[in-house]
Amino acid sequence: MDGRLMDKATTGAGETVLGAATSPQDARRAFRGGVVRPTCGIARGYAQANMIMLPREYAYDFLLFTQRNPRPCPLLEVLDEGSPYPTTAKGSDIRTDIPLYRIWEDGKAVDTVDDISDVWARHDDLVTFLIGCSFTFEFPLMDAGIPVRHIEAGRNVPMYDTSIACAPAGRFTSTMVVSMRGIQPDRISDAVRISGYYPRVHGSPVQVGHPEQIGIDDLDHPDYGDPPILKEGDVSVFWACGVTPQAAVMASKPDFAITHAPGHMFITDVPDITYMV
Amino acid sequence: MDGRLMDKATTGAGETVLGAATSPQDARRAFRGGVVRPTCGIARGYAQANMIMLPREYAYDFLLFTQRNPRPCPLLEVLDEGSPYPTTAKGSDIRTDIPLYRIWEDGKAVDTVDDISDVWARHDDLVTFLIGCSFTFEFPLMDAGIPVRHIEAGRNVPMYDTSIACAPAGRFTSTMVVSMRGIQPDRISDAVRISGYYPRVHGSPVQVGHPEQIGIDDLDHPDYGDPPILKEGDVSVFWACGVTPQAAVMASKPDFAITHAPGHMFITDVPDITYMV
Repeated sequence: MDGRLMDKATTGAGETVLGAATSPQDARRAFRGGVVRPTCGIARGYAQANMIMLPREYAYDFLLFTQRNPRPCPLLEVLDEGSPYPTTAKGSDIRTDIPLYRIWEDGKAVDTVDDISDVWARHDDLVTFLIGCSFTFEFPLMDAGIPVRHIEAGRNVPMYDTSIACAPAGRFTSTMVVSMRGIQPDRISDAVRISGYYPRVHGSPVQVGHPEQIGIDDLDHPDYGDPPILKEGDVSVFWACGVTPQAAVMASKPDFAITHAPGHMFITDVPDITYMV
Repeated sequence: MDGRLMDKATTGAGETVLGAATSPQDARRAFRGGVVRPTCGIARGYAQANMIMLPREYAYDFLLFTQRNPRPCPLLEVLDEGSPYPTTAKGSDIRTDIPLYRIWEDGKAVDTVDDISDVWARHDDLVTFLIGCSFTFEFPLMDAGIPVRHIEAGRNVPMYDTSIACAPAGRFTSTMVVSMRGIQPDRISDAVRISGYYPRVHGSPVQVGHPEQIGIDDLDHPDYGDPPILKEGDVSVFWACGVTPQAAVMASKPDFAITHAPGHMFITDVPDITYMV
């Protein structure tokens, strides 16, 4: 798959077409059935979430990390230790309902899987953190007539490691990961204003137009997701990204972690507007 | 003192007049010197904070409690275990710079003091939580021509226990505490809108005009702070309050805790506008 969308994916139950009109329940059912694709553009109007699971011994330090870094890590929910059942999506199971997961050991991604039930069974003290995702404000941007290039092209959003330091917390330290969208100059203000209404899903951009000042040398080769599409005159606009916890895992090397694969989010039942200020 | 303001307070260094024009540094210096009074109306433009300290063994559960209850418990800062030095106020010391503290044992307030240096010395693993305060949006309300009755009268804000359940987290459970301001009907919308821009300091009200529906039987006798002043036609408007952690302490009975005394806040150096969306 490697980040490219399948508009039609085959599940055990037959053909599933996922798009803006798909309900969160149907989308999660498709992922549970084996569909693997990024979730941008799916289930319009419902908040999506980044996910990281850590053993209980790391949970306080990580919770503190999110508190100290609310731009990249705005928490939507923290599950009780050992519980796989999010309250933000009734009837869901965090072990099966994300399209693609990454397994981490000592800060290295050791596997990519579409179901973590068997891995979970070997770890009885995992704490699951759900973190807001910028996909939530992409529909409002499009509603305001601001094109979102990667959705138009059926791709995953481009994401980059940066030189922006996060505030450390206990054993966790990291630089910030950002997502990028190309915006025409006369719409930058609107894009800032509209995304700013959603602080629980990263809010307004962290930087506009100067990738080299935040340590991004080559826009064409993102560290996560798909290469960007920039149209004539587009300015690169950068938002804090919920993949930052994965950079924190790489930098801080907890002995075990599970995350979503970048762009492959958990789709909640919570209307986007719940997180609007 | 019992909640009433002293406009002029005597410190060891002489007479100190605290008001809107006082800097956060001067206000903290006065409190460090022994001045005891509520902090509403002081140091215009700088965020004030509720405070709770807990032994490390309770810190994860409480941090989770704040994450699950962001309306009453929006975190501004969590200090490292054993550190009394907030980064939100350079040069400050959390053991001396709050006007009045409460000491709690097994869920009961056992003492009220203006300096906790000696108590702190006997507890080497305290974690300090600073939580946003509605005093932050009172100046913007007044700037918009909405009178804030308790400030006009030189009183502490009235606060009430309610029947609104907080989401439990580990060993912490609580009902929500709210602050109340009387607002004329034609300004309620503005008061909601303006406070809503400040989600990090409780944001928009949790209820308008029907105290009996949230378990408040007698507006004239608040559970914390001073009795309210309601002018002809005022509607009672209720905001989530950072005294909620004290209700959580009473309900959950950690063996030890220290909080600020209601209305007697920690004044930070962070401009209010930092927390505006």
